[in-house]
Amino acid sequence: MQKKTVKIGLMGFGNIGVGTYKALDMNRSLIEAKTGIDFEIVKILEKDVDRKRDVDVPREKFTQDPDALFADPDIDIVIELLGGVQPASDFMLKAMNSGKHVVTANKAAVAANYDALRKAAEDNKVLFRYEASVAGGIPILTALSGALLSNEFLEVLGILNGTTNYILTQMTEEGLAYDDVLKTAQEKGFAEADPTADVEGIDVANKLSILISLVFGERVAPEEIPTEGITKITKDDIEKAAAEGKKIKLVASAKKEAGKLSYSVRPTLLPYAHPLAGVGNEFNAVFVTGNAVDELMFYGKGAGPLPTGSAVMGDVIEIGKAIAKNAAYDTIVAGGKKA
Amino acid sequence: MQKKTVKIGLMGFGNIGVGTYKALDMNRSLIEAKTGIDFEIVKILEKDVDRKRDVDVPREKFTQDPDALFADPDIDIVIELLGGVQPASDFMLKAMNSGKHVVTANKAAVAANYDALRKAAEDNKVLFRYEASVAGGIPILTALSGALLSNEFLEVLGILNGTTNYILTQMTEEGLAYDDVLKTAQEKGFAEADPTADVEGIDVANKLSILISLVFGERVAPEEIPTEGITKITKDDIEKAAAEGKKIKLVASAKKEAGKLSYSVRPTLLPYAHPLAGVGNEFNAVFVTGNAVDELMFYGKGAGPLPTGSAVMGDVIEIGKAIAKNAAYDTIVAGGKKA
Repeated sequence: MQKKTVKIGLMGFGNIGVGTYKALDMNRSLIEAKTGIDFEIVKILEKDVDRKRDVDVPREKFTQDPDALFADPDIDIVIELLGGVQPASDFMLKAMNSGKHVVTANKAAVAANYDALRKAAEDNKVLFRYEASVAGGIPILTALSGALLSNEFLEVLGILNGTTNYILTQMTEEGLAYDDVLKTAQEKGFAEADPTADVEGIDVANKLSILISLVFGERVAPEEIPTEGITKITKDDIEKAAAEGKKIKLVASAKKEAGKLSYSVRPTLLPYAHPLAGVGNEFNAVFVTGNAVDELMFYGKGAGPLPTGSAVMGDVIEIGKAIAKNAAYDTIVAGGKKA
Repeated sequence: MQKKTVKIGLMGFGNIGVGTYKALDMNRSLIEAKTGIDFEIVKILEKDVDRKRDVDVPREKFTQDPDALFADPDIDIVIELLGGVQPASDFMLKAMNSGKHVVTANKAAVAANYDALRKAAEDNKVLFRYEASVAGGIPILTALSGALLSNEFLEVLGILNGTTNYILTQMTEEGLAYDDVLKTAQEKGFAEADPTADVEGIDVANKLSILISLVFGERVAPEEIPTEGITKITKDDIEKAAAEGKKIKLVASAKKEAGKLSYSVRPTLLPYAHPLAGVGNEFNAVFVTGNAVDELMFYGKGAGPLPTGSAVMGDVIEIGKAIAKNAAYDTIVAGGKKA
């Protein structure tokens, strides 16, 4: 196998950015042995150069100018880890218009601008992948658009937010009230100071919008998804559920019946025997039913620097293989084509 | 996208052969819409032409001559679903030497002749895929050698045999004795008349041998794996386990510590809280730990015509995409390269 160097520009060097850098750094020789490719992060867009991080990055890799990444002819792949819809979406479009392949973990940007981002990839004959945007380290999007492609999907159910699943698990197992668990979660760093996007289900709606595109080939914007969070769940609700042998989970669901798609994000009663009922604390899981494969569940860490970095690097490696072999554009495009 | 026809020769038309035919048949238009490729099974190697099956196959597709598949210049992919080490292995080698890509669900043949089969694929610049050989419909091999490639794996645990998991689940939940459950399982068609390969763990050792190749890049023959089946498990053992809050499962495990690989197939006590403990009846699951992604579990149907057919067709579609785009050989080779 011929060795080839694939160069990467990284946008954003917060937790996920550092996790991605680390996932590559600690497994570099293994990745090179398996792929014959040397992946190198050559530029990092980040204002805060002096912040203490647990990786050692040469100072000269940092830049504060996004165009330094787009204009660099050596950069093959841009990884976008800024978060938020803008300027992340514009940066990804610019990167693709500059002929760069793009990888992102940004569910808000992908859910908001799915069509524009995919169109830019097609127009520019570059690859656009976003495995890390749904369920963190769990390689569900790659499976749905690759190994499971021979299925017509009937239903997808997901526990897609670690913060809310942690809160509900603690309320269930420790008999605590919502406000008390949220406070502890915030102190421990499991929940953000402003937890709205998590506890109101907005984060999950973004992820479900992306899942629906891949599973059913239909485009439903996050704001079109009926969404209810977990803020109204009481100890009483949870005890009532337990008395019926059930757990309350924040479930994203989409189902196609008689050609009609229905979807929602809402607290849902699951019998103990349901595989999703056993998914505790910060774990995520996606449960899909296909007309050939039947029931399938993927379970793992839905967030965190290294698990998310694993998913980002998985996408980067797939693109790197295609670059190394000069494979044609569509060969490894990860699904999402309208059926 | 340009439409292209990819032609398939199918060897073996038992349960899995029919399941694969059906998975393609029922989702043909969906697969074509998603890939731009028309997959067509043009020849079927099978002696029993008159057997009643629940699919309608034109009689002229059947042949009793394997060379009719190898020599047909129209056939791009040979699917081997004969089972057993021979003549399946020789047929796969012949197919590859005739320039055909090969897909198989045959764990015994892959585990016994892994190196020879992979070498034939490399020598002939064809693709060789075997997702269905481990854990049926669960796309674990594709994930290990694709989306999870940036991980160094620390451990893999699997419940990889539906028959034994069904027997242990029924013994646990219904308080029945081994012999009684086995008898019922045989009557229901969940266990074979001669259940040795399942209940003695031989089937699982084949699958673990394949998993070890992909997870740790090392080759361990099935007969080198210390293997203990479930025939000695008593009601008493199961009750004792339950009293400690544990379940007995037939677990395949492989672990790397300080550079040393250890492995076994044996009945194992799992605490109720372990994700594998909840895997009941005929379901399979694979639990892997990577140094970036952390804990990950894949759960689904480990056998059955349609789930296995889903995995076979997933491989066929990946190869079809490469054929359609004239992609270079290694681009989509599914892992297994020695690290």
